[in-house]
Amino acid sequence: MPTTRSIITESPTSKFSKGEMPLRELGPNSVAIKIMFSGICHSDIHQARDEWFEGIFPMVPGHEMLGEVTAVGDAVKKFSVGDRVGVGTFVDSCRECEYCKMGRENYCLKGNVQSYNGRHYDGGETYGGYAQAIVVDENYVLSVSKDLDPAGAAPLLCAGITLYSPLKHWKVGPGMRVAILGLGGLGHMGVKFSVAMGAETYVLGHSPAKAADAKEFGAKEYLITSEVSDSHKNFFDVIINTTSADLDVDALLRMLRVGGSLVNVGLPGSDQTYNPFSLVTRLEEHRRS
Amino acid sequence: MPTTRSIITESPTSKFSKGEMPLRELGPNSVAIKIMFSGICHSDIHQARDEWFEGIFPMVPGHEMLGEVTAVGDAVKKFSVGDRVGVGTFVDSCRECEYCKMGRENYCLKGNVQSYNGRHYDGGETYGGYAQAIVVDENYVLSVSKDLDPAGAAPLLCAGITLYSPLKHWKVGPGMRVAILGLGGLGHMGVKFSVAMGAETYVLGHSPAKAADAKEFGAKEYLITSEVSDSHKNFFDVIINTTSADLDVDALLRMLRVGGSLVNVGLPGSDQTYNPFSLVTRLEEHRRS
Repeated sequence: MPTTRSIITESPTSKFSKGEMPLRELGPNSVAIKIMFSGICHSDIHQARDEWFEGIFPMVPGHEMLGEVTAVGDAVKKFSVGDRVGVGTFVDSCRECEYCKMGRENYCLKGNVQSYNGRHYDGGETYGGYAQAIVVDENYVLSVSKDLDPAGAAPLLCAGITLYSPLKHWKVGPGMRVAILGLGGLGHMGVKFSVAMGAETYVLGHSPAKAADAKEFGAKEYLITSEVSDSHKNFFDVIINTTSADLDVDALLRMLRVGGSLVNVGLPGSDQTYNPFSLVTRLEEHRRS
Repeated sequence: MPTTRSIITESPTSKFSKGEMPLRELGPNSVAIKIMFSGICHSDIHQARDEWFEGIFPMVPGHEMLGEVTAVGDAVKKFSVGDRVGVGTFVDSCRECEYCKMGRENYCLKGNVQSYNGRHYDGGETYGGYAQAIVVDENYVLSVSKDLDPAGAAPLLCAGITLYSPLKHWKVGPGMRVAILGLGGLGHMGVKFSVAMGAETYVLGHSPAKAADAKEFGAKEYLITSEVSDSHKNFFDVIINTTSADLDVDALLRMLRVGGSLVNVGLPGSDQTYNPFSLVTRLEEHRRS
């Protein structure tokens, strides 16, 4: 069985070690990729530490892979050796359910095969991008322009699409006010995308030290969340929470305009609470008065 | 000062009594209405019992008023004596904010003047529909056809619009599956509207005895909520919660299709909880497995 040099964690409490891990056989539809860069995502930490669900160990995290095609199966049509490619958070889906058929494979009803800490439908474990190579079905490989800096492009495979998708879905553009909550790996991309889409963009957080970064990324203002929930009532069209911290959901809802959207892309491990009155503009006011 | 015969509650623990209560003076823009019918809404109970916020007592509840115009001010243009009219949950708004200007006065930024248990902008208390008459600015009076049964039409002023509005907003129609949670004053209207709009309509509840009513209103099936959250995963396009009970929010989210909507029109007095994973289809599956 082929193997590849990998960075491995043996258990939820282990440190990383280097070693050889199994690589999928090159099937007729698969693409072998030499991994040049792999992003580090907060969800890698959650999974390596078993904070979300029971993981499969040994684990090789990494789901923001950027590399070059080194071999292709006989039936591969979309890729050739030497192509610049990316692999994101999943490497297979059922291809038959309504969501797969409409190109929204991330909502596959059978459940996606996650790029690591998951199992292929044949039962084999998946190992991710903290490695020198990966073999993936061509349908789950993305073409990447060689004009992009490959190190900068890698995080687009998860952090990027995670922010781009809700901004696109909620039709962010000129005349809208967007708040990005948290200015980390996800947040800074959200700010850049939102600014590029023409929206008046703000960062919500709790670290005044990050204000300069926010401005540099194009944000109009860095706001301390706990201080502005009253002064910025009915203010934002879209708030995207990129943090996995416990939230004051009611305070965020209060800052939304009528018909606005609060999007959670950060995933706290614990339950969140909200008061139903916060969903009913003005009534909440009466209640508090 | 003019008065009108009313049904009054003196405190959150009082029984109702009958008496005379003040009536607004007939101004140039106001319409005097003889109330024929007034619906009884669960929110009347919440307010009469101070379950939402501190009420103004003595209180005359009632915000689903149906009646006939008995007098109009000199400047009134839309109504004449003898017209059949309705008054709903509010009797004034600022008329200047963005929401008032776009005809969504219910979201008035200054805060609506509630039909009862509220204050006019001049400070005067408002008294509602459990009375023989009311005087209201013509802009907050609605025209009602005399072809409608007035007793049946009264609850349309709150319960009706409360269900019609979200069904319309989420574009309910043929090919969609709608669940109405709870089959009371709100719920039965929701079922009828949803069926009339062409959606496959279900009732979610916990009382098998209500199954016959659900069918009679046109529902396809009456489902016991706690029994179907797994069998009906990814099933509904829209779920409207009409109850003010504490909810298993995660169970309801699990039943929604991708992009579906859970609408809360019932208002529990206490905080509700959800797990952020429930907003991320499939991941929640992984987590539970």
